Amino acid sequence: MSEAGTRRRPGRPRKERGAGSARASIMRAAAEEFAERGYEGASLRAVARRAGVDPALVHHYFDDKADLFTATLEAPLRPDRAVDLILAGTQHDIGERLVAYLLERLDDEKSGRRMVVILRTALSSGPGTRMVREFLLREVLSKLAGLVGGEDAELRAELAASQLVGLIMTRYALRVEPIAGTPREELARRVGAVVQWHLFGAPGAPLDAEPPTGE
Amino acid sequence: MSEAGTRRRPGRPRKERGAGSARASIMRAAAEEFAERGYEGASLRAVARRAGVDPALVHHYFDDKADLFTATLEAPLRPDRAVDLILAGTQHDIGERLVAYLLERLDDEKSGRRMVVILRTALSSGPGTRMVREFLLREVLSKLAGLVGGEDAELRAELAASQLVGLIMTRYALRVEPIAGTPREELARRVGAVVQWHLFGAPGAPLDAEPPTGE
Repeated sequence: MSEAGTRRRPGRPRKERGAGSARASIMRAAAEEFAERGYEGASLRAVARRAGVDPALVHHYFDDKADLFTATLEAPLRPDRAVDLILAGTQHDIGERLVAYLLERLDDEKSGRRMVVILRTALSSGPGTRMVREFLLREVLSKLAGLVGGEDAELRAELAASQLVGLIMTRYALRVEPIAGTPREELARRVGAVVQWHLFGAPGAPLDAEPPTGE
Repeated sequence: MSEAGTRRRPGRPRKERGAGSARASIMRAAAEEFAERGYEGASLRAVARRAGVDPALVHHYFDDKADLFTATLEAPLRPDRAVDLILAGTQHDIGERLVAYLLERLDDEKSGRRMVVILRTALSSGPGTRMVREFLLREVLSKLAGLVGGEDAELRAELAASQLVGLIMTRYALRVEPIAGTPREELARRVGAVVQWHLFGAPGAPLDAEPPTGE
């Protein structure tokens, strides 16, 4: 943020072109590519072309498109990997484990703040909305919906996500008390029960997760 | 948006100073006052002083601070009044009526877009977050919590609000399908049941609202 930090001192050489520089070029190219073509339309090959590097170098630094995308956004967590991990566990507490994962990753100051910046990108009038929407649909929501199954699986997955997004907004962006200061475990129980119900709940069925008050 | 619209044609007189101009001055002054002092710290008297008008004139145009605040934000709905209205009805379907109200007000293109701009203000790194937080706490959440009662009433009210905020984000900002195109009635049932449970649900109690699938 300081002005001095953004100015090159006279006589100080530019950073040598090398590994760091190639990775940075790829990330700059990726940011352009995602902004112009969305998450769906972007390709690692096209990113390599923009950056003027061999596609193999992109694959050397980044596992796949989701990896490059989350790196470009400086995302403090990998929702696509989290979903893989969490869905591989028991089904009856998926809601609670999703919420617990989210809060563990975001509860440190820096990560929470970064997440708010990403939400802002998603709300921007620019290309951010499309990028984030396409990423979520492709890498997160479709996996959740696949697990749920049934005609309304996509809607259920999105309603579960809407509760998670709202929790992020109130705890890390608006920072309203008491929600901002409530222990993770209690939020995981209360919000986890809702996420679970959105995903699997039958009409009128009891919320089968842990008692939300913990009493 | 058109360039022509923003330019004054040569020879065209400035708008006469009068009713419209006084109201506009008050709103400009209010925007400054809320940004500098937050919603709690702002007062109609100080707004009048900034605008260089008599306090009675502010009261002539605006009922109260909430009225001035929502006018300044060009809010497409009045959450404070909605809560008064909805809480005055039966308790067993408050969740569903809150969601139905929200969707009815925001489902037209322009209102939904305006709401997204307000969310962006709430996420801004500037004074928007504090303003919106204080308004919500003072005029909306405290009323909801008052109805709920009990030790965890504030947390319950905020968790209910978090689900509503998340619904707004996914339906009007991210616009993910199918959530963006799902009929209001179905969302009111599904999300209303969750809001109701956040507010009043006992551990392990059945979701007592309408069956969420409508089947």
